[in-house]
Amino acid sequence: MPQGRLLYAQSGGVTAVINATASAVLATARAHKVPALWAKNGILGALREEFHDTRKLKASEIKALAHTPGGAFGSCRFKLKSIEQDRGKYERLIEVFRAHDIRWFLYNGGNDSADTSLKLSMIASEVGYPLTCVGVPKTVDNDLVGTDCCPGFGSAAKYTAVSVAEAALDIAAMADTSTRVFVYEVMGRHAGWLAAAAGLAGQGEDAAPHLILFPERPYDEARFLARVDAVVKSVGYCVVVVSEGIRHADGRFVAEAGGKDDFGHTRLGGVGPLLAQRCKDVLGLKVHWTVPDYLQRSARHLASKTDLDQAMAVGKAAVELALAGKNGVLASIQRVSDAPYRWKVVPQPLADIANHEKTVPADFIREDGFGITAAARRYLAPLIRGEAPPPYGRDGLPHYPRPQLPLLPRLLPEWTG
Amino acid sequence: MPQGRLLYAQSGGVTAVINATASAVLATARAHKVPALWAKNGILGALREEFHDTRKLKASEIKALAHTPGGAFGSCRFKLKSIEQDRGKYERLIEVFRAHDIRWFLYNGGNDSADTSLKLSMIASEVGYPLTCVGVPKTVDNDLVGTDCCPGFGSAAKYTAVSVAEAALDIAAMADTSTRVFVYEVMGRHAGWLAAAAGLAGQGEDAAPHLILFPERPYDEARFLARVDAVVKSVGYCVVVVSEGIRHADGRFVAEAGGKDDFGHTRLGGVGPLLAQRCKDVLGLKVHWTVPDYLQRSARHLASKTDLDQAMAVGKAAVELALAGKNGVLASIQRVSDAPYRWKVVPQPLADIANHEKTVPADFIREDGFGITAAARRYLAPLIRGEAPPPYGRDGLPHYPRPQLPLLPRLLPEWTG
Repeated sequence: MPQGRLLYAQSGGVTAVINATASAVLATARAHKVPALWAKNGILGALREEFHDTRKLKASEIKALAHTPGGAFGSCRFKLKSIEQDRGKYERLIEVFRAHDIRWFLYNGGNDSADTSLKLSMIASEVGYPLTCVGVPKTVDNDLVGTDCCPGFGSAAKYTAVSVAEAALDIAAMADTSTRVFVYEVMGRHAGWLAAAAGLAGQGEDAAPHLILFPERPYDEARFLARVDAVVKSVGYCVVVVSEGIRHADGRFVAEAGGKDDFGHTRLGGVGPLLAQRCKDVLGLKVHWTVPDYLQRSARHLASKTDLDQAMAVGKAAVELALAGKNGVLASIQRVSDAPYRWKVVPQPLADIANHEKTVPADFIREDGFGITAAARRYLAPLIRGEAPPPYGRDGLPHYPRPQLPLLPRLLPEWTG
Repeated sequence: MPQGRLLYAQSGGVTAVINATASAVLATARAHKVPALWAKNGILGALREEFHDTRKLKASEIKALAHTPGGAFGSCRFKLKSIEQDRGKYERLIEVFRAHDIRWFLYNGGNDSADTSLKLSMIASEVGYPLTCVGVPKTVDNDLVGTDCCPGFGSAAKYTAVSVAEAALDIAAMADTSTRVFVYEVMGRHAGWLAAAAGLAGQGEDAAPHLILFPERPYDEARFLARVDAVVKSVGYCVVVVSEGIRHADGRFVAEAGGKDDFGHTRLGGVGPLLAQRCKDVLGLKVHWTVPDYLQRSARHLASKTDLDQAMAVGKAAVELALAGKNGVLASIQRVSDAPYRWKVVPQPLADIANHEKTVPADFIREDGFGITAAARRYLAPLIRGEAPPPYGRDGLPHYPRPQLPLLPRLLPEWTG
């Protein structure tokens, strides 16, 4: 049995399957007889010395995490800066790890947490504290480099494709006397991966979504409106999917274009409502819009089986990499083949990953900028395959237990950070 | 074998299960060897003489309708006025029915279509044309009187409760450093049934949704903000569900309160974004909001089994009532008992139903106006029970076929409206 404890923490926006990664981490640590702590609210829990001892979780509770969305013991939006700027925090972390005999640290997140894991491994090495840091990928935005895809994305992608397909049938039925243009706003501030995934809902230019607007392409209102008009004339209605982060050619977010209201507040609503309003005002068409917001990243009821499998595989691999002393790596997903879809988990140096951002490549976006290519379909299609519904109770609701654990007693003075 | 043909049409906003009703209608008609026509785009198809002959559908296509959302051959928002005002249209309908030997008319919709069915049966009787009109209930708003519930509502209710539960887990995980207030806007312009259904997501005042705002109660911003503030202080975050149709005490829609923008357009966005903005501005809290819009009424992937069963039962019963000559009735759902939940389909006179609206009764809304009572739970709980997922393809998407049928040749001069 190895010496010391393993610490697991979640970072950034949670997903439908990040707890599935946690489930695999805990089960694998347990199989290796390594005691695992879980930091409350991500790295903040480590700074504040707020830890849950997962040895108190029943095996059934660990198993149930695999079908429970959200982050069971909290996540955080908290970015540690450079070692120069935040040395005090990094040293505090090492002090806390030393006090609790934490020898392995698994940080489950996106770009920021890869950066934090890397810097922690550097500080530990600098001060001679034996710590192995392993990053575990997660983000619905799919914008992490060094991994073929990110757990969390496949389920959000499936949610998006299914929801667009369902809403499109509604619009098709009503278009004769009601809504002609439907605008669906997806997450993705800088990368249009979820927008691209919507493209899986239909095949061909006449199938919904008829237009996809990517943050990778500048927004041109005249071209957009002309295309909506043409689609409505030929198909009878038009389903538009827009990434929240689309920008004008000069770099301004389109969502900011509306300016301030009478009270000086930034105009309400995102880019979806704004585009719908333009279709109404300029084209005179009846419009509706949706902003699914957090629903798209928490819809465990519609998880992709592929995504779930990958979320659990990176959790298991991360523990194994950590125990094998692979320091400063990400448990990343490598695609072996498209058809049949094959993949494996391999270590990637965090140094190659931290603070980069993977946007949708040019050859995934159709020439006209309004759809996806066959190459995009080859990449995306396997990620939404397979269903993995949670168990439902007799009440008709999914069984989403919220495990409760007390905090371990503090061993150090309170962090005043 | 009875003489003549049966005509089926869909009206108003479509639902996740209205095609399931259609499926049962067609299967039952076929079992009785009655040829069934399906009007394109609801009653407009009858006025325009646009009919599909469903005898050309394969049995497998009829079966697949039961798991396909939307309205397979279109619906419409088109209200016929009083017989005095619209006599020409009613007479045109009788003329079309006579030309196509339509003896039974099944109109699947809400209040307006119940009214249309009733008036058509009156006109037919007046002119001595042998026609049996039967209403078939449908609406996600659940606001039809004379039926315990409306097919379509149970599935939208389940979608709402599940989505609120999932999003709440997301907020709970992030509240320490991110979103504190999440506002979820549900459909329901005049009746708060879907808002009430959100209450099934949690039990007790500390469970999400922490506040529900009903159109049945006047909106008081000061009380609302005070309650959000108190919930955030005690729970750490607050999930608000708001019905799109909430109003100020003076009757104005809250969603209209924002007035016009700089261009003179009515402010974008619904009441959800508006309430979120107020929480941000007044309470200084980080907020997010969602407007699921059509997703909530088309989410066949999350249909309630109870709802699906009822959608099919009213379709079957409507054909049987029609063939038995029960004219001017609605195939309505009667609750026999809450626990165990038992129900049956019974005929209700359309005259008692048309143009009434069933809002959420006072004893279903908690004294403070922000939640549901035990009586509401007794009513709502059975309606979301059971899962009835559609079949999924190997591509990870639900199998939603769109049957294609040619239009029958016209027998009369074109309708010029």
